[in-house]
Amino acid sequence: MNSSHPAVDDPIGVAVVGAGYWGPNLVRNFQASTEFRLRWLCDLDVSRAERVLGGYSTVRATDDLAAVLADDSVRAVAIATPAGTHLEVATAALRAGKHVLVEKPLAASFAQGQTLVAEAERRGLSLMCDHTYCYTPAVLRIRDLLRSGDLGELQYLDSVRINLGLVQRDIDVMWDLAPHDLSILDFILPAGVAPVAVAAHGADRIGAGRACVAYLTLHLNTGAIAHIHVNWLSPVKIRTTIIGGSKRTLVWDDLNPGQRLSIFDRGVDVASAEELGDEQRRDMLVSYRSGDMVAPALTEREALRTMVEEYARSIRSGTPALTDGRAGLRVIAILEAASRSLADGGRLVNLTEWTDA
Amino acid sequence: MNSSHPAVDDPIGVAVVGAGYWGPNLVRNFQASTEFRLRWLCDLDVSRAERVLGGYSTVRATDDLAAVLADDSVRAVAIATPAGTHLEVATAALRAGKHVLVEKPLAASFAQGQTLVAEAERRGLSLMCDHTYCYTPAVLRIRDLLRSGDLGELQYLDSVRINLGLVQRDIDVMWDLAPHDLSILDFILPAGVAPVAVAAHGADRIGAGRACVAYLTLHLNTGAIAHIHVNWLSPVKIRTTIIGGSKRTLVWDDLNPGQRLSIFDRGVDVASAEELGDEQRRDMLVSYRSGDMVAPALTEREALRTMVEEYARSIRSGTPALTDGRAGLRVIAILEAASRSLADGGRLVNLTEWTDA
Amino acid sequence: MNSSHPAVDDPIGVAVVGAGYWGPNLVRNFQASTEFRLRWLCDLDVSRAERVLGGYSTVRATDDLAAVLADDSVRAVAIATPAGTHLEVATAALRAGKHVLVEKPLAASFAQGQTLVAEAERRGLSLMCDHTYCYTPAVLRIRDLLRSGDLGELQYLDSVRINLGLVQRDIDVMWDLAPHDLSILDFILPAGVAPVAVAAHGADRIGAGRACVAYLTLHLNTGAIAHIHVNWLSPVKIRTTIIGGSKRTLVWDDLNPGQRLSIFDRGVDVASAEELGDEQRRDMLVSYRSGDMVAPALTEREALRTMVEEYARSIRSGTPALTDGRAGLRVIAILEAASRSLADGGRLVNLTEWTDA
Amino acid sequence: MNSSHPAVDDPIGVAVVGAGYWGPNLVRNFQASTEFRLRWLCDLDVSRAERVLGGYSTVRATDDLAAVLADDSVRAVAIATPAGTHLEVATAALRAGKHVLVEKPLAASFAQGQTLVAEAERRGLSLMCDHTYCYTPAVLRIRDLLRSGDLGELQYLDSVRINLGLVQRDIDVMWDLAPHDLSILDFILPAGVAPVAVAAHGADRIGAGRACVAYLTLHLNTGAIAHIHVNWLSPVKIRTTIIGGSKRTLVWDDLNPGQRLSIFDRGVDVASAEELGDEQRRDMLVSYRSGDMVAPALTEREALRTMVEEYARSIRSGTPALTDGRAGLRVIAILEAASRSLADGGRLVNLTEWTDA
Repeated sequence: MNSSHPAVDDPIGVAVVGAGYWGPNLVRNFQASTEFRLRWLCDLDVSRAERVLGGYSTVRATDDLAAVLADDSVRAVAIATPAGTHLEVATAALRAGKHVLVEKPLAASFAQGQTLVAEAERRGLSLMCDHTYCYTPAVLRIRDLLRSGDLGELQYLDSVRINLGLVQRDIDVMWDLAPHDLSILDFILPAGVAPVAVAAHGADRIGAGRACVAYLTLHLNTGAIAHIHVNWLSPVKIRTTIIGGSKRTLVWDDLNPGQRLSIFDRGVDVASAEELGDEQRRDMLVSYRSGDMVAPALTEREALRTMVEEYARSIRSGTPALTDGRAGLRVIAILEAASRSLADGGRLVNLTEWTDA
Repeated sequence: MNSSHPAVDDPIGVAVVGAGYWGPNLVRNFQASTEFRLRWLCDLDVSRAERVLGGYSTVRATDDLAAVLADDSVRAVAIATPAGTHLEVATAALRAGKHVLVEKPLAASFAQGQTLVAEAERRGLSLMCDHTYCYTPAVLRIRDLLRSGDLGELQYLDSVRINLGLVQRDIDVMWDLAPHDLSILDFILPAGVAPVAVAAHGADRIGAGRACVAYLTLHLNTGAIAHIHVNWLSPVKIRTTIIGGSKRTLVWDDLNPGQRLSIFDRGVDVASAEELGDEQRRDMLVSYRSGDMVAPALTEREALRTMVEEYARSIRSGTPALTDGRAGLRVIAILEAASRSLADGGRLVNLTEWTDA
Repeated sequence: MNSSHPAVDDPIGVAVVGAGYWGPNLVRNFQASTEFRLRWLCDLDVSRAERVLGGYSTVRATDDLAAVLADDSVRAVAIATPAGTHLEVATAALRAGKHVLVEKPLAASFAQGQTLVAEAERRGLSLMCDHTYCYTPAVLRIRDLLRSGDLGELQYLDSVRINLGLVQRDIDVMWDLAPHDLSILDFILPAGVAPVAVAAHGADRIGAGRACVAYLTLHLNTGAIAHIHVNWLSPVKIRTTIIGGSKRTLVWDDLNPGQRLSIFDRGVDVASAEELGDEQRRDMLVSYRSGDMVAPALTEREALRTMVEEYARSIRSGTPALTDGRAGLRVIAILEAASRSLADGGRLVNLTEWTDA
Repeated sequence: MNSSHPAVDDPIGVAVVGAGYWGPNLVRNFQASTEFRLRWLCDLDVSRAERVLGGYSTVRATDDLAAVLADDSVRAVAIATPAGTHLEVATAALRAGKHVLVEKPLAASFAQGQTLVAEAERRGLSLMCDHTYCYTPAVLRIRDLLRSGDLGELQYLDSVRINLGLVQRDIDVMWDLAPHDLSILDFILPAGVAPVAVAAHGADRIGAGRACVAYLTLHLNTGAIAHIHVNWLSPVKIRTTIIGGSKRTLVWDDLNPGQRLSIFDRGVDVASAEELGDEQRRDMLVSYRSGDMVAPALTEREALRTMVEEYARSIRSGTPALTDGRAGLRVIAILEAASRSLADGGRLVNLTEWTDA
């Protein structure tokens, strides 16, 4: 082994790029992980990086990305800069042979995202998207419940993510908040189930020049429907997702720490549609189950801590992360289609226009 | 005055037609009102009518609608039969010279509704639609707040009305539940503000032959947006409406008796869009108000009681009820447009296709 | 069988005495039951009785209790008059050979209650106390869970029953509201478990001449504790009871219709105290269970309907009702002891001073 | 000025003693404050201190308290060790001329607390008690509302602080949790209003050797009542305080970030008791106000940050902190009286037994 490269079991040298809103969380979690050794915090405004590190840190602050990328002790780079800069920064890092973690969304466009994925795959480097919510205990459990069949087949998913949020300068509320819901949807769906079309409606009533309230409707290849409401203008904060399955229905209320998940054995049973003719279908018996609800015990654990461990696993094993670049790309495909729908008065836009390209 | 007609100040003789789900509520409220004298409860199944009246009542049960309509002591008829029968029953009542109250929706189609409105207007009779929610203390207050300008201009309205509901035999969830939200919207909007287009998405995952989950998006002539989520399959019951105004935002949680209305003086302020160029608009200052919330005291009062009083007022004064036939017609116009949108993959359907007709 | 007495299977003729706050609920439920035939509604103010019956009823209103008690078609009397009159009215009814149902509390004092119980037992008549809450689906389920051992041994019970309530003219908040909690406690406790002492604190800060806020602490013969907070001055309404058992803990939130009962498999496990010496006890291992929560499905059913059926069962079978006069007496014993404690600065008052008498 | 002493405007050198549960929070907040310069983290287990500081810190870890106290650059010491050690550690620090901040409770007994207060006053050093909750935006606002008269005179205070908590080895639930409520009560009461007696009940049903559930009732010199429920065994977490005033009632729900404070203009009005004779008092008119509720906007700010600033202010100004040693002493006086009451079956214990001593 070349002495300039650290041994496999040594902590992975990492640099964080971007000391704004999200960077400090990455700094804190890389520092807390024994898998990583944080080497740099890089920001165009070096004083901002210094403030984030505080007056007691041995980590170096810099505004010189080239120096960071030239540092052999750095094997991995975590990027928390505005989406519009992801292509440039991540490409530079990949070309310098670094594994890359990117804050959501992966890139500012589907085409940019494709470029990054191709670059990483060509070089055999891990490209991971920080879809943080996927690593919460709640979403990990939902994924298990849906993929194991415990909930039955997905019938509908309804997600509301609203509060009084910052009106972003460059992106609308859909690009700001919906990546959370779309990445979660991508993460929990069983193999073979996927969105095929999207329609979006929105409103910019405060004259911000971009939608501050938006509704996305996704049609899945199974006939199921997923609906997402994102809103920057709501004085009340709601983060609730209802997942209706053919066996059980799950409600995830992320603002209720004592009962984040509720699994209802209540619902509507109908005779199988296949067994019935059209006439019969109108008269079929519908029966209602009034069953118990179970709120499973979840271990509280910071999602970023689990995400950072998954990043280490991906780097060390050479296998894709659970939320790899391709997952990030699937999210952007839907966002771009939704933007087109929004511009076209809510027209249902087929996702194959993107994913087949 | 002809002795066979009651004096103006006497109680108004009334008959209820339909002893199913809603009829008993009308029976109870007409009995409790000094404005009315309940004469008949009529149902095709007379034993059902008898059961509703119970073993201690002096009100007559019958299955003979013709006899009811021939009774001169009956001046008003309240119809709580399935929507598909409204045209026939209400037309018969109007032709017999009776004032008519109809359970929502007014009729099974826009054309049928038009027929009823025309018949009532030709005869100078009161045709009222029982849009019950409009008469709750909460909605009456919301109407005042919006029409007085206290909330500012409407920016968005978001309504969620979901629970484990009965899958209806003849109508989908949109025709079952959305009339509540659409009639409320119609009721509270200031003069000159109205929906102009609607798009709808839905899913029938349980093979019921009609949508059990539906989303309606309405675009208003002011640029505002209204969105309605109705769902028969949700194990949790939610009835929450958020009304975002340019000055304040109101949240109506109908399941929280201690705090049904919350009025937030929190929000986003922006420089007027008219004063700014496109360049400036991107950079404009957005400021956040973090103000108090006020939950106004509301007097608890059964909505049907107020509705029944409004019906008496309309009959006695010869003026249209607050929720008259035309209001019922506007609701059906949107429902029909939404049904067409649902069939067309969520296409935005212009409401003038109906209202201009 | 004497022809003047109805056959066993005929509806039981019943009269309601008292047309104030609670009487109308009894009227409605007796009318709805096929087990009973309501004959009279009696009130000193006959016009009040007439208003309660309304303009469409065949039930007779009267202010003549003697006439009611002389009516052979009346086998049972339900009393909903002020507590101070229970002794007189119920004694008259029992002496007339009628079964008697009494609104809580059974009587205005322990001594009065004893007189009633003795009178009923001497005559072999059913004396039932309308402890309505005991007949809610929630409390019936709690009783099953506690008596079956599913919750383990009771460790503590904490009940909060507060809202902005009517300041009563003759009784304090303890006598007004705590009978609910005390009757529930009496109802759910397994055989052999009972309160042995009570302490009470209260405050009359509005100068009403009686406590408007009160706290009762009951010590049980098992070492368990029960605590009751009743309050007429709270602008928020809370009706929550926590029942801590050695195996599971149950939370009953009566204001949450979608999740009235929550059963937690979370708690603290300790090594059995018997196996350990004093030294060890200080160091014993305490382990925490972080288990699931189950909210059992409950059928919604009006408690008074079940209570009325239990009354019929008691009358027809000649066996005591679940909440018979003795249960009512046990509740009064605690109320009297609590009143003495309140007057004595919260002194712990032994219940045997009453129950042994 | 001696060069070995820092200038007044320089950051205050501080050392944290104790790296257990609370110490890390103090470390984080001293590091974030420009008023302080954190010099040491001291713990008997130096590896624990090192783990708290992490692998990137320039702060020194040590197990040598004497060395810390001998360091002239250290002007202040913050103690987060078990209560039983407070006397020894704080005395040593005071004798070394350091200002002292102590985690609640101030000491393990009233006598020990008196010793500390006397020592600090003799030396002119700041002795502050870290009553963290007093520095939350919510409690600071409550203090203003109560002391300004906006709520009127205090009638009752009811506090519930329950959840599944760690069963402590050396103290019962009362000494563990009630210091929060007692320090808040001490902090918000207007001048001249104070508790005069306390009664306590508790239960140790899990055989832990100390109470795991406890109820404290405090009688105030104004006739008002304060009640505190603390509980380690509740699977649900509740932190709600109701403060009933003669003008308004305030509800503080610390677990509801969007609406922590609710101020109700609802209540009961009575004619002044002074104007009425005893006879009249029974018949006086009680009127109910059904007014609005206001939830004031609160700025979110970490309480410890404000506490640390108050500590700096106290040190620099030479004036007592808002929660100084005497405040800590008043809290212990109540805890000791409550412990005696608990041992005496809930006997009402006069607080002058302590405070007069």
